[in-house]
Amino acid sequence: MSEEFEKLEQVKVPALDEILGKPFKVLDDGFIRVIDYMGSDQSVVQAARVSYGKGTKKLRQDRGLIRYLMRHKHTTPFEMCEIKFHIRIPMDAWRQWIRHRTANVNEYSTRYSIAIDSAQTTKPDEWRMQSKDNKQGSSGYFDVETGRQLSEEERKLQNLARETYQKRIDLGVAREQARKDLPLSTYTEAYWKIDLHNLLHFLRLRMEKNAQLEIRKYAQIIGHEIVAKWVPFTWEAFLDYEMNAQKFSAIELEIIKNIISANTEAVLEIAEKAGWLKVKDGRLVKNLERMEMEEKLELLGLEKPW
Amino acid sequence: MSEEFEKLEQVKVPALDEILGKPFKVLDDGFIRVIDYMGSDQSVVQAARVSYGKGTKKLRQDRGLIRYLMRHKHTTPFEMCEIKFHIRIPMDAWRQWIRHRTANVNEYSTRYSIAIDSAQTTKPDEWRMQSKDNKQGSSGYFDVETGRQLSEEERKLQNLARETYQKRIDLGVAREQARKDLPLSTYTEAYWKIDLHNLLHFLRLRMEKNAQLEIRKYAQIIGHEIVAKWVPFTWEAFLDYEMNAQKFSAIELEIIKNIISANTEAVLEIAEKAGWLKVKDGRLVKNLERMEMEEKLELLGLEKPW
Amino acid sequence: MSEEFEKLEQVKVPALDEILGKPFKVLDDGFIRVIDYMGSDQSVVQAARVSYGKGTKKLRQDRGLIRYLMRHKHTTPFEMCEIKFHIRIPMDAWRQWIRHRTANVNEYSTRYSIAIDSAQTTKPDEWRMQSKDNKQGSSGYFDVETGRQLSEEERKLQNLARETYQKRIDLGVAREQARKDLPLSTYTEAYWKIDLHNLLHFLRLRMEKNAQLEIRKYAQIIGHEIVAKWVPFTWEAFLDYEMNAQKFSAIELEIIKNIISANTEAVLEIAEKAGWLKVKDGRLVKNLERMEMEEKLELLGLEKPW
Amino acid sequence: MSEEFEKLEQVKVPALDEILGKPFKVLDDGFIRVIDYMGSDQSVVQAARVSYGKGTKKLRQDRGLIRYLMRHKHTTPFEMCEIKFHIRIPMDAWRQWIRHRTANVNEYSTRYSIAIDSAQTTKPDEWRMQSKDNKQGSSGYFDVETGRQLSEEERKLQNLARETYQKRIDLGVAREQARKDLPLSTYTEAYWKIDLHNLLHFLRLRMEKNAQLEIRKYAQIIGHEIVAKWVPFTWEAFLDYEMNAQKFSAIELEIIKNIISANTEAVLEIAEKAGWLKVKDGRLVKNLERMEMEEKLELLGLEKPW
Repeated sequence: MSEEFEKLEQVKVPALDEILGKPFKVLDDGFIRVIDYMGSDQSVVQAARVSYGKGTKKLRQDRGLIRYLMRHKHTTPFEMCEIKFHIRIPMDAWRQWIRHRTANVNEYSTRYSIAIDSAQTTKPDEWRMQSKDNKQGSSGYFDVETGRQLSEEERKLQNLARETYQKRIDLGVAREQARKDLPLSTYTEAYWKIDLHNLLHFLRLRMEKNAQLEIRKYAQIIGHEIVAKWVPFTWEAFLDYEMNAQKFSAIELEIIKNIISANTEAVLEIAEKAGWLKVKDGRLVKNLERMEMEEKLELLGLEKPW
Repeated sequence: MSEEFEKLEQVKVPALDEILGKPFKVLDDGFIRVIDYMGSDQSVVQAARVSYGKGTKKLRQDRGLIRYLMRHKHTTPFEMCEIKFHIRIPMDAWRQWIRHRTANVNEYSTRYSIAIDSAQTTKPDEWRMQSKDNKQGSSGYFDVETGRQLSEEERKLQNLARETYQKRIDLGVAREQARKDLPLSTYTEAYWKIDLHNLLHFLRLRMEKNAQLEIRKYAQIIGHEIVAKWVPFTWEAFLDYEMNAQKFSAIELEIIKNIISANTEAVLEIAEKAGWLKVKDGRLVKNLERMEMEEKLELLGLEKPW
Repeated sequence: MSEEFEKLEQVKVPALDEILGKPFKVLDDGFIRVIDYMGSDQSVVQAARVSYGKGTKKLRQDRGLIRYLMRHKHTTPFEMCEIKFHIRIPMDAWRQWIRHRTANVNEYSTRYSIAIDSAQTTKPDEWRMQSKDNKQGSSGYFDVETGRQLSEEERKLQNLARETYQKRIDLGVAREQARKDLPLSTYTEAYWKIDLHNLLHFLRLRMEKNAQLEIRKYAQIIGHEIVAKWVPFTWEAFLDYEMNAQKFSAIELEIIKNIISANTEAVLEIAEKAGWLKVKDGRLVKNLERMEMEEKLELLGLEKPW
Repeated sequence: MSEEFEKLEQVKVPALDEILGKPFKVLDDGFIRVIDYMGSDQSVVQAARVSYGKGTKKLRQDRGLIRYLMRHKHTTPFEMCEIKFHIRIPMDAWRQWIRHRTANVNEYSTRYSIAIDSAQTTKPDEWRMQSKDNKQGSSGYFDVETGRQLSEEERKLQNLARETYQKRIDLGVAREQARKDLPLSTYTEAYWKIDLHNLLHFLRLRMEKNAQLEIRKYAQIIGHEIVAKWVPFTWEAFLDYEMNAQKFSAIELEIIKNIISANTEAVLEIAEKAGWLKVKDGRLVKNLERMEMEEKLELLGLEKPW
């Protein structure tokens, strides 16, 4: 073995050490806290340099290399960092969370132990209205009077659910069966461990405006309060190249190009061919692809040409 | 390319084709049915022969090869078969199910659609008592009189939960929020796709006597009604080498060997060293390792020597 | 159970059935062929409708729904289709291939069997020159005279390697050891099974112009000859929204917007702040982010403003 | 939030810290060294207690809990520890290594950089003979004279391979193509990160006597020199319940039970039914299942009854 290796120490990130174990409060009775971690921005760079060899050693600074990796989706170096959280979260939001399969999980077991005596409550000003446009979303809040009534009914239901559960437990019903009618709002806890690449993927989906508010609140804390401190270069690159980036489809690129060169005829031809310009009763028929294109045009300060 | 390949057809298993799409009823309102599948026992053999080359071609018959693969945990050929189910199941059992990460899942979304109007109900003679020995298990049933009372309270709680949900929906509360207090007993549906190796792993855990009764009922149908028809050689090998097999630890092997050769002194020395023979108030202190060993001795028809 | 389910049959795609088992030749002695498959475009739609419920049933046509899923990265319905290939490929390209972890694999074992007696040879006009710009790429071909010499040396080396291997085998050296000096160009074979979502991810990376030519040839056949026939709507959506799409970072979007509104001052300020406009000896210093932006500007028909 | 959490620090294991970064030499020019790690035996316990709740808190000591988890295959708490290695290994062994998919990998890229100038050489006394019994194994060594000749031919082949590679590189052949005829014995390097549960799975397969010698040497060092120091309770439990344990199939259990109760008639009936006792030319026909059973009987000190 020709190379000499020096002794190493665990990689430490002082800014993260400062908040290790500290719970960030989320929702009315939830929290998230970092239990442990492995690696740093520097570990991403170190792994990339194993992959790409000595050639890269001095050419690029660390920040530039991390941005390059993010931009070109060279994702494996980001997998070299790992973080472990302790989370307290309503089962309803946890049901979504757990769909991310590339993580390690130990959840509080209501077969072994009495269910956590806490359910997420909704304040009178927190009741959201069903969105008309977005079948999976909400839009706006109810007036406080209606909200008060909804919260009161929620309280009654949650109380009855807990009483029923407690009665079953007191009678000696098996915990695994007694829990069957607990509301989805019941809090659970878990240890959740994931690598940085997969965590960023989680954040991209769950910090997005279409993600459900409850899980978004956890994701925002993970992103802005934790990842930003842990791996600041990676976080900056992630915001630039993923979170705040926009993708344009082949058709959209073609249209933008023709708008820029003022070739309206070509634009309309492309849009027509894509089926975006169907007319009914003298108006454009609703078309999701076209509507999303229009949003992107607005983003670029371009007029829609139809 | 020297080899000549003939045209192929999709692999078909007539015994499985017969039940394709047919729902097997589980619990009071659940079901499981096969939507589609790929491969057969023959596909396991075919893949193994790519791995192990021509050497194996005539030496072993198909059944023997499958048993060999199962026995020696050569698991990759079993990954070459895939099956897709449609499942209707209470969210509580689904919460356990989904912890198996190596599967593909599309679950009914209660953000997009109104929650399924059905919750799992418990009949008066179905209420189980908490096991004393097994913190996560149940043991025995309540008398029907107590059961009737429990079922009546269950009914009231489920009704209130559904009314509250319906009221929220009618008012225009966002579906993603309205669902928050649905009971865990609410049915959900999903498409679930998995390869044969990972399905067998699921069955080993979920058909076991310690698995919760509700999920065990689904697992038993998958095993005995579906996998047994789909891949009969694999199923037989799985029962022999996994489901009905027993593992003996290094210590247990040493003890059995010495019991057989009637070397009681050595047995007691090993058990003593393992910390199994602590005495308090003239009786052996409860020790899980020793107790599990005793069960295995009984299985082999051997007397416990302490 | 209120719903009635009809009997099902295995989903079949006649256009794919026609080429089932047929080897597509790749490189000098490689091939790829489809062994079996599960699902179709229709299966993607079917799974999406379980997730998104009845609400979606008539609103969107199948093609529109598939495009929507692709555009919004709702990837799970695409996981509901599965395909199994038989591949013959040089070990060198296979080393890259196998890095895609979300697939099932059975590779020909040179521990069990004699190594395949074939190594990938390079024709005189196929020798590529190292790219100057792209550390991992090639650019242009050698003249045939140089190529002839390179091919001749390749032949000698491959012959010596095979002779040495054969001598070891004849002497009775263990196969697992005899293989140790086989060249990476030696062909191997494998069964490779993957779901449609992960296959598209593989294709996005391996059909790209930066992918190594050898693996790209396999990827192109999978894409254009196989996936295009198997799931034509999915394939079209993939080309539009993934393969031929372009992502613009937060900074790039800001710059394009300001170019369009002719705000050159703002453009330069943003570029300056991003560190793109460093000057040395009167010329812009090489900066990868800026150069990639310039390519995108050209794509849109915009002049670079610096 | 009712609970109070104290500040935490990164979990440290002094015995592992002592060897952090230190290369353990393997084969003639390989090594393995620990780059970083997360967690300890204590972290396994901590995660298990989240899952199983307060009920377990004082009942069992840490060692006992870890043994319980290992025995009952409660694997998720072991996933809460993570370790990262730097490995230098011949490509041939790496080809096997990489088949373990549940790990994070950054391998040295011979597209970006010149291939490592080192190939694994075999000393005259290291040439192994093909096993007759085990198609995938080796058995015994060649005499040194034959070995010397094999080593000499190996040297010539490796030299020609390196010269050819160097000539291509000097001529300007693209690195991605120049490497195509490097021997499998060429060393590569990688960062490899994996959780403790999956690492133990790797060790169970690769420390086993049937694993190829080259990879077994790496596995033994990981096990005995690294994991034993990192998580001593887990390591002890793994040896007892996995590495040195034995599994008995349903048929084998039945036979042992009947041998113990001296019911030879039943034994022979079971063996007959299993197809183990076929006779040809007055001798038992070779049967792998029976032969493996015979080894287990010997292990228990029992005579084979046929």
